[in-house]
Amino acid sequence: MHGALSPTFATGHGVDGRIDQLVRKGAAVDGMITLGGGLPAGELFPRRALSSSFLRVISDPRADALQYGWAEGREGLRTWVTERLRKRGAEVNAEDVLITSGAQQALALAAQVLFKRGARIGCDAETYPGALDLFEARGLTPVAAEKDVDGFYVMPAVSNPHGGSMSEEARGKLLARARATGAAIVEDDAYAEIRFHSAPPRSLLADDREHVFHVGTISKTLCPGMRVGWLVVPPRYRQQVLDAKQTEDLQSNSLAQVLLEDFLAHNDYGVLVERASRFYGRRARHLARALKRRMPELRFVMPEGGFTLWAETDLAGDDRELLETAHAHGVCFDPGRSFRFDKQAAPIAMRISFATEPATKITEGVERLARAVAAYRKRAGAGAA
Amino acid sequence: MHGALSPTFATGHGVDGRIDQLVRKGAAVDGMITLGGGLPAGELFPRRALSSSFLRVISDPRADALQYGWAEGREGLRTWVTERLRKRGAEVNAEDVLITSGAQQALALAAQVLFKRGARIGCDAETYPGALDLFEARGLTPVAAEKDVDGFYVMPAVSNPHGGSMSEEARGKLLARARATGAAIVEDDAYAEIRFHSAPPRSLLADDREHVFHVGTISKTLCPGMRVGWLVVPPRYRQQVLDAKQTEDLQSNSLAQVLLEDFLAHNDYGVLVERASRFYGRRARHLARALKRRMPELRFVMPEGGFTLWAETDLAGDDRELLETAHAHGVCFDPGRSFRFDKQAAPIAMRISFATEPATKITEGVERLARAVAAYRKRAGAGAA
Repeated sequence: MHGALSPTFATGHGVDGRIDQLVRKGAAVDGMITLGGGLPAGELFPRRALSSSFLRVISDPRADALQYGWAEGREGLRTWVTERLRKRGAEVNAEDVLITSGAQQALALAAQVLFKRGARIGCDAETYPGALDLFEARGLTPVAAEKDVDGFYVMPAVSNPHGGSMSEEARGKLLARARATGAAIVEDDAYAEIRFHSAPPRSLLADDREHVFHVGTISKTLCPGMRVGWLVVPPRYRQQVLDAKQTEDLQSNSLAQVLLEDFLAHNDYGVLVERASRFYGRRARHLARALKRRMPELRFVMPEGGFTLWAETDLAGDDRELLETAHAHGVCFDPGRSFRFDKQAAPIAMRISFATEPATKITEGVERLARAVAAYRKRAGAGAA
Repeated sequence: MHGALSPTFATGHGVDGRIDQLVRKGAAVDGMITLGGGLPAGELFPRRALSSSFLRVISDPRADALQYGWAEGREGLRTWVTERLRKRGAEVNAEDVLITSGAQQALALAAQVLFKRGARIGCDAETYPGALDLFEARGLTPVAAEKDVDGFYVMPAVSNPHGGSMSEEARGKLLARARATGAAIVEDDAYAEIRFHSAPPRSLLADDREHVFHVGTISKTLCPGMRVGWLVVPPRYRQQVLDAKQTEDLQSNSLAQVLLEDFLAHNDYGVLVERASRFYGRRARHLARALKRRMPELRFVMPEGGFTLWAETDLAGDDRELLETAHAHGVCFDPGRSFRFDKQAAPIAMRISFATEPATKITEGVERLARAVAAYRKRAGAGAA
């Protein structure tokens, strides 16, 4: 009963139907090397431990895993979220945590209760496409964070697509502006725990419980298929987000929540996170070396964490055409335009993932990418001549 | 890690915070007999078969169950939905099916693409509270279906709370009005397969592919905790609902989808549905007999299917106070006001569930309910004197 397609991209491309079509087409090609998408490495999924948990929870006579649950999510899971956040300086209570269907729903609920149509949201020049799609769908306008805004959308710990973190100075300025103007801050912490050289920094929640909406997930550390994320809100918003969640889909799936509670009671999450961080750090360095060797003309900053790096070319033109050329060479990446609210921004850039493929495939993928870029350059040059 | 509360109600009470608080309070009471809520009987959950499926799917080297998937959901599952619907006369294709996080999200997505704020939605006088909450949150106005409307929300196969089905005449009129006015029809089919004496009727999809949005789920037949539902849309709405789904939560959880695909490949869903229908039919008859014996003053129509019956008392007043009295007597029900968009509607009515508790508990629950009603009547009489 398996479909012919295999998902390789899941960060929202509603805005650009052509990219969505390209990604789907690419995903259907045999032998494609996947340097696009935000997919974690399947080999890290804790299958055996999840099987043990499943067999335990399915034998519970109350059958909580298969039954309806409360809209806010399981209390044990919400408590666990607060324990992780307390280690990062945040004094939060389980009542402030709503379990969501992944980080995307946490973003959607935050946007729903915070922003009216026409609101201006301060973002990085390159940011998460799923957030940009959401803003467009809700009639919100992403703008440079320096401008006058009604709210902020930021990734202080590990940014997507860059894999960078916010400086202390920038954090201080952001928090001061929120306090001064009353603008809410949506802190997207999705990649925060995947850091290569140091622990995650303080959450913005640690410094401001009144303006910060915090978004988290297990999708990058454990697995995304369970769709477990969370939204931590200022206490005065509790009821409003709970009502919104209940109206949208009643509750997040019980099966994954109960499974995860059992899993966390029997396994050391911290150890798994450290292992994953080392694993992705190795792949990041491997990709960086391959790019420097084979495509020295690319400009990129070595990521501190996450699944991807952001590489700028010296090319102008339409990055979707470059993606089509790359497909023809058996490799895919994420075109820069997906991450930019200014669709005119130049030059052509690529988000390149080191998360999904093993080292040998990354090497071969970079080789194919280099050939694709050369072919695109040649054609563009010929076209201009 | 289990929370102190146990969920007994999951059909959306955002509209009435006081009912929500009452329900939560009631759920925390030891020994409470649950004649409220729309919870299926846990003893019907196919735990062993789901365990076998889990162990099979977790060993898949692609690890689809734990990985991201496409926004529209698994192709195998969408195909299965079309096969079930074809048996009920509907010519639909897998591309017209979107897998959602339960029926509630299917309703929310349908409302999102169909109705603008201020739209008037024709409904039964008593209908699903989760839909009423959704309409209120979206600025939609539920009205009697006979009035001028912008759309319809109906449950033709098995209605909630009544457990009745739409007559052929009413179906014909509804379809004719949709064709004449262009108003969309949202067909909520959540309880359609739980019918006590006959197979589910034709889906409205069979007679109109242009105006009908069809909502389905496995929550009532298999289990609700997996949060698998679906929305079938007219082809011209495909892209729009897909974009909306992706923006809201990227995709429905892969784990439940992959698990369910495997489960359906190894088990006879039709047999399970028939067994469940017989099981709930027996409980319905047991409840009806107990009510007739112990509370002959109640007016109700024997349900044709579903989990509940709708009983009207000869009492006026506030049904939330009756619920508080019932709690004090160790039983809960769903107060009629949750189902009525006209909150002034009289008399006091109760949705009584026969799904959750075994026969002996139903008997005892009705005994407690009778005592609670007598106590309420006495107090109301004393108050009036």
